[in-house]
Amino acid sequence: MPMSTAGQVIRCKAWEAGKPLVIEEVEVAPPQANEVRLKILFTSLCHTDVYFWEAKGQTPMFPRIFGHEAGGIVESVGEGVTDLKPGDHVLPVFTGECKECRHCRSEESNMCDLLRINTDRGVMLSDGKSRFSINGKPIYHFVGLCCGISTGLGATLNVAKPKKGSSVAIFGLGAVGLAAAEGARIAGASRIIGVDLNSKRFTEDGGVDRSVECTGSVNAMISAFECVHDGWGVAVLVGVPNRDDAFKTHPMNVLNEKTLKGTFFGNYKPRSDLPSVVEKYMKKELELEKFITHEVPFSEINKAFEYMLNGDGLRCVIRMD
Amino acid sequence: MPMSTAGQVIRCKAWEAGKPLVIEEVEVAPPQANEVRLKILFTSLCHTDVYFWEAKGQTPMFPRIFGHEAGGIVESVGEGVTDLKPGDHVLPVFTGECKECRHCRSEESNMCDLLRINTDRGVMLSDGKSRFSINGKPIYHFVGLCCGISTGLGATLNVAKPKKGSSVAIFGLGAVGLAAAEGARIAGASRIIGVDLNSKRFTEDGGVDRSVECTGSVNAMISAFECVHDGWGVAVLVGVPNRDDAFKTHPMNVLNEKTLKGTFFGNYKPRSDLPSVVEKYMKKELELEKFITHEVPFSEINKAFEYMLNGDGLRCVIRMD
Ligand SMILES: [Zn+2]
Ligand SMILES: [Zn+2]
Ligand SMILES: [Zn+2]
Ligand SMILES: [Zn+2]
Repeated sequence: MPMSTAGQVIRCKAWEAGKPLVIEEVEVAPPQANEVRLKILFTSLCHTDVYFWEAKGQTPMFPRIFGHEAGGIVESVGEGVTDLKPGDHVLPVFTGECKECRHCRSEESNMCDLLRINTDRGVMLSDGKSRFSINGKPIYHFVGLCCGISTGLGATLNVAKPKKGSSVAIFGLGAVGLAAAEGARIAGASRIIGVDLNSKRFTEDGGVDRSVECTGSVNAMISAFECVHDGWGVAVLVGVPNRDDAFKTHPMNVLNEKTLKGTFFGNYKPRSDLPSVVEKYMKKELELEKFITHEVPFSEINKAFEYMLNGDGLRCVIRMD
Repeated sequence: MPMSTAGQVIRCKAWEAGKPLVIEEVEVAPPQANEVRLKILFTSLCHTDVYFWEAKGQTPMFPRIFGHEAGGIVESVGEGVTDLKPGDHVLPVFTGECKECRHCRSEESNMCDLLRINTDRGVMLSDGKSRFSINGKPIYHFVGLCCGISTGLGATLNVAKPKKGSSVAIFGLGAVGLAAAEGARIAGASRIIGVDLNSKRFTEDGGVDRSVECTGSVNAMISAFECVHDGWGVAVLVGVPNRDDAFKTHPMNVLNEKTLKGTFFGNYKPRSDLPSVVEKYMKKELELEKFITHEVPFSEINKAFEYMLNGDGLRCVIRMD
């Protein structure tokens, strides 16, 4: 896309929600104050896309443009944007950082009051309108991007914080869980144990030092908590539960000096902390190539969906054509 | 007691369990290898005494000598004891520190594998026998001492770790809860909120920074967890629950970056860490006088029991005569 498109409505291919998927041309309005318009070069699919596309258990918002694990460049910027310029390489992020609220000013939280993820909004924050339309009919936004790797990696590095030589159990071995395992590798864990359903094996030796739950199943959450060692074990919950789930355990498990923590986006503050994740990748400390098992052009988006629905491979990169 | 009693059986007044309380003369055998025999100068009562005296919900062990919040001096030492000598002022402790097991070597745990509290034992670890008897009939031991203050203080200072200027809610305002509040004061908390049953008030302003649960009621535990702020809140459980209680919450509460921790004896390692607590008191950083509301001689032990059962005052010091 030439840079001369700045200030004009642009036309992109996109797909509308529901079954079957369709690719249509969408008009994208110019960025307003404090907004940027991106040209997405690559994207990927994760279960979050599937979850909101199926729209079971949350507010359905259609028509909507999905996709949120992307990489691209800035096409143009709105008034007041000073820290980004056309041509900059960027990762959209599904949650924001205003740098001013109580959460942004806390060292411990990344749950910005102003820009926290809101999957029910579907429009821009400033004017409550969408920037996408087809023949004047608005199309809802979804969210930003790059949840999987940062979430899993941060859950281990920022929250579980395993010590060198410790044991870490990972519940759920999708991209988030494997990124959590990658975090354990980077932290120098001596044993990294992948688990699907059965945590019995840990009770033999008193439990693991850390566990990270990446499935969203409440039973896995309970197992992840109960399998950590008394005295110092820390369990970190990452997976998103169902609306009516209850986490239930005997309080004696807590009193025996176990810790239960949760994390949202791996406790990374998106603007402040993500550059350090990219740097880890650039320095080859963080290995991401092994997460990519397929690559398809955008015209074959349905194939990427099939891979995901069939549990075939891990991440399919979708090349925008 | 003159030091010449070393190596001899001594006779003390004590009371046997059940209702009503009785004071009888008990023979105390000389200390065996790695044991010390103490002369108790003062003691106190706490709910733990009442709980095991009522013997609802745990193994009844009678006849037994209760009392575990004491201060005294070493009367004589057994073979191999090198770090204590007759005349030393000591606090018995209900849990031990072998300095060699995985827990003792961990910076984070104080739950010694070898010497962890065992209220069902009632005898010495070395030979499985009691050192107390009346006319040759053995009387069971109870546990060491000094649970309340250290447990509450450590729960706040070692586990909740409130930052200067933060808000701390304390559930349950007995000696443990007030010691937890004392910890919050020492840590420089700007708001310390005492709660009995209702945590609704906290949800108005997003929650408190830290909470410490000192009642043992599972509903208070759940409230204590739910009332901490998302993003950084930490709830610490101290109170001992009933056998069939279930801690139940929606996992989303955890995912919103709240932390649930438990503590045993305030995470203090008894031999390594307690001297620092005594030092805090000696330097007048820790104020303990305000915990003492009554004082009685040992012959009026029943009065101390009445104060406790009626919820009259906080701690009654019992002066051994
Ligand atoms: Zn903010
Ligand atoms: Zn995702
Ligand atoms: Zn030990
Ligand atoms: Zn006590």
